[in-house]
Amino acid sequence: MISWKNFDTLTSYQELKNIEAIDLAKEMSGDNGADRIRNYSVSMGEGLNFNYGARPVSEEILSALANLAKEAQLAEKFEALYNGAVINTGEKRLVLHHLTRGQLGSDVVAEGINKRAFYMEQQAKAKDFANKVHAGEITNAAGEKFTTVVQIGIGGSDLGPRAMYLALENWAKVNNTHKMRAEFISNVDPDDAAAVLSKIDVAHSIFVLVSKSGTTLETLTNESFVKDALAKAGLDASKHMVAVTSETSPLAKSDDYLAAFFMDDYIGGRYSSTSAVGGVVLSLAFGPEVFEAFLKGANTADELAKNANPLENAAMLDALIGVYERNILGYPSTAVLPYSQALSRFPAHLQQLDMESNGKSVNRDGEPVCYATGPVIFGEPGTNGQHSFYQLLHQGTDIVPLQFVGFKNSQMGEDVLIQGSTSQQKLCANVAAQIIAFACGKADENRNKNFEGGRPSSIIIGEQLTPESLGALLAHFENKVMFQGFVWNLNSFDQEGVQLGKVLAKRVLAHETDGALKVLSDLLNI
Amino acid sequence: MISWKNFDTLTSYQELKNIEAIDLAKEMSGDNGADRIRNYSVSMGEGLNFNYGARPVSEEILSALANLAKEAQLAEKFEALYNGAVINTGEKRLVLHHLTRGQLGSDVVAEGINKRAFYMEQQAKAKDFANKVHAGEITNAAGEKFTTVVQIGIGGSDLGPRAMYLALENWAKVNNTHKMRAEFISNVDPDDAAAVLSKIDVAHSIFVLVSKSGTTLETLTNESFVKDALAKAGLDASKHMVAVTSETSPLAKSDDYLAAFFMDDYIGGRYSSTSAVGGVVLSLAFGPEVFEAFLKGANTADELAKNANPLENAAMLDALIGVYERNILGYPSTAVLPYSQALSRFPAHLQQLDMESNGKSVNRDGEPVCYATGPVIFGEPGTNGQHSFYQLLHQGTDIVPLQFVGFKNSQMGEDVLIQGSTSQQKLCANVAAQIIAFACGKADENRNKNFEGGRPSSIIIGEQLTPESLGALLAHFENKVMFQGFVWNLNSFDQEGVQLGKVLAKRVLAHETDGALKVLSDLLNI
Repeated sequence: MISWKNFDTLTSYQELKNIEAIDLAKEMSGDNGADRIRNYSVSMGEGLNFNYGARPVSEEILSALANLAKEAQLAEKFEALYNGAVINTGEKRLVLHHLTRGQLGSDVVAEGINKRAFYMEQQAKAKDFANKVHAGEITNAAGEKFTTVVQIGIGGSDLGPRAMYLALENWAKVNNTHKMRAEFISNVDPDDAAAVLSKIDVAHSIFVLVSKSGTTLETLTNESFVKDALAKAGLDASKHMVAVTSETSPLAKSDDYLAAFFMDDYIGGRYSSTSAVGGVVLSLAFGPEVFEAFLKGANTADELAKNANPLENAAMLDALIGVYERNILGYPSTAVLPYSQALSRFPAHLQQLDMESNGKSVNRDGEPVCYATGPVIFGEPGTNGQHSFYQLLHQGTDIVPLQFVGFKNSQMGEDVLIQGSTSQQKLCANVAAQIIAFACGKADENRNKNFEGGRPSSIIIGEQLTPESLGALLAHFENKVMFQGFVWNLNSFDQEGVQLGKVLAKRVLAHETDGALKVLSDLLNI
Repeated sequence: MISWKNFDTLTSYQELKNIEAIDLAKEMSGDNGADRIRNYSVSMGEGLNFNYGARPVSEEILSALANLAKEAQLAEKFEALYNGAVINTGEKRLVLHHLTRGQLGSDVVAEGINKRAFYMEQQAKAKDFANKVHAGEITNAAGEKFTTVVQIGIGGSDLGPRAMYLALENWAKVNNTHKMRAEFISNVDPDDAAAVLSKIDVAHSIFVLVSKSGTTLETLTNESFVKDALAKAGLDASKHMVAVTSETSPLAKSDDYLAAFFMDDYIGGRYSSTSAVGGVVLSLAFGPEVFEAFLKGANTADELAKNANPLENAAMLDALIGVYERNILGYPSTAVLPYSQALSRFPAHLQQLDMESNGKSVNRDGEPVCYATGPVIFGEPGTNGQHSFYQLLHQGTDIVPLQFVGFKNSQMGEDVLIQGSTSQQKLCANVAAQIIAFACGKADENRNKNFEGGRPSSIIIGEQLTPESLGALLAHFENKVMFQGFVWNLNSFDQEGVQLGKVLAKRVLAHETDGALKVLSDLLNI
């Protein structure tokens, strides 16, 4: 029997509060530090390991976190989720994104439909469509092959698929599986669509319109923008556009599209990269086999996330330590720092994933909570960040926990040997050095050159960023956010906070405003 | 006589602490809210206005902030800075980036050189070089015109110039002044250089190597990477590379470069976009006249920043309100949210500018301070962010002050009319709506749909994002950060926090490690 309780009502919360925090700089020095890095590691599958040696935990704290996992019934709640419970309490919906990559439990049937079968059917449809485009069986009106795919979507229909595309673009090129160039239009700023259209060959482009509801203002506006451009080029838009939407949306059965691929209300936008939202564009760009490998990697991580023992479950452990850092140590933000240029937009995706899921002040029953929930998430790739905001991370007045990601091998394999080391070795040497610099610091008589240390981090180490490891990495963070939502007793799967702005924007456009909003609208010439 | 005192020793700090915080939601409602938006506005020049109606201030608080400005001698300190005082106490250096765009005070002579004349000379050299490249007087060995410029630099040699290039790329295209495509290589990750090289035509590319010291590991490594590629293509690297460096660096007089342009130790990397660091690449990309217009805009903002009255000095006022939010209200982070896709990387630049300048725990004399200094800075363009992390901003448990930027007109002028409004109007309607939604909130019996409000923001409103307004926008934030550094009594112009990581990374590469660092290095296969 699952019981949903606020975090601060749990015995393990009190237990955690009563444990003295560790002195991380001391713990991480000498042989003890070496042992921590050696032992505090969990396999994540697909060649990835989650190393938490430099996070602010001890055996005592880990034991209390394991108690918390048990008391908060994290494994049971995940089990309920993947077996089809109504976890999204606000919208009264199931939460089924895991089913896009595998069946974790029993069959989930909703509205008489087996949902795993439904998602697989959509995936097969996208595969078939992509194969036909690549084979030249689906072409433009002139019978020429499409070379470019442009995703039109915003939020979860943009950030995840864009980050995944960039993560695999160069890998696909060197592995001869880069089939089509992908571009993305998201912002309602007309310069966004205009700039993308100015640099592509529209006659050879397929546009993927992504909107679950079929009513997203930005996306429909950009669709019109693109249709205008196609018409001006003398092209029939319906031969250049496909839709990814829900079966009940106005886009689903429209003749305006070459094809339509479906998702449903049980997959939130920020969890939709493994659904048709990511599947169509990624299958077109890289071929369906690459997308399947990506799903396989995500499924590997999902299976590991079922383990009730947090010491064997990286996502659960990462979540628990994050809660400890947020609620016991009081750190208000977390940085995501991938040492991989291919992951340049991964932090922006995680920013949405995490902040939109757990940036809430009421619990899943709509009652206010009295503890801090989701932190601010930000990040940029290393080593770039080292020459930028790391100054504050090292010597600022606030402590920011860090989530590093690093790979032993580059994607493209081109490298140079300078001063006895390759670029890839320099990249890895830097991330190793940063972890120790943050944790241990370094005393200096000149206080300006003094490093206090005690700044916690973890690192996910992989062999190489591939479709499989990318899938596992993505699912790790999705599951981490889910577990944190369970601990905080939140509904991590709705986003009521985005509604008020939409309502007011409509009022501005209808010129139905007064007070400050009217003055602002006038200042902006609306 | 200037006296440098810690913030918490000032009378005005105590005064601020004793004033009751305002109820922003209440203040921003009805006619009072309309009056605030109408009246709380300062001209920033170049068509920009800083509107702080929705920031958490009252007449009483503004008066206390004016007292703080006076007591902390903000105007006098800025005057000392631009007249050549040693403001960078850690490195014992002058701080002269303002001189790259205009002479604000008396002549500054260092090492016998008039520094304004020196910077203008470098600018003229870049102008002449760019003009010759554009005219085909400087060509590749085959006598063909260069079409692409690639900046190789990291941190301040990358983020600012890259953000500025992206900000003006489409503006330049529609104004027929886009001369050369620009690309950027920054990360030591070998995939960064390999990916850029794979998509350009190296035979027609000029590479701008940017390193003040001439010793930046990432940059020299990427230079070798590029030289390798040029050699493989049968090209003479010295005919394809220019250097931007200090006169004393190993790069300054090398035959490896077609030309060398100089900066000096008085311009920090993060303040170098208006020096040759930004000047060479932007003059090549857009023509020197565009770069000059950008400098003019920055100078306009600098001149306005001299005003001792914060109510007439947007940068100073923005700084003071930010300090109030950080130290009195206790908000740990700030989001920068430009409603302009062209400013997609502007937040990443401000993140460096702010966090590297003021992420410090010791004052300018090297003594620890007992108050919070620079906040975490993050951001993405709107409306994209609305569909992402705004959930937390609206309904999360922490309050995050927001800095919006919006323009009445788009850059490219292409637009569509949908449901009675253009995309540009929708964009502007959204930013107006967000400001009011954040400030005023909206009560709802369903607590999950309830918005508390009371979340402060300001907006900089401009006519259009042009070289001039971009310059003013950049200088506004530079000067804001400077004034905050003065209030907090920090040295905002060094970055000792980046040193320890560099030292440890070298040790890893030399295999001179033990303890946790050795284990980590082994795990990463170094």
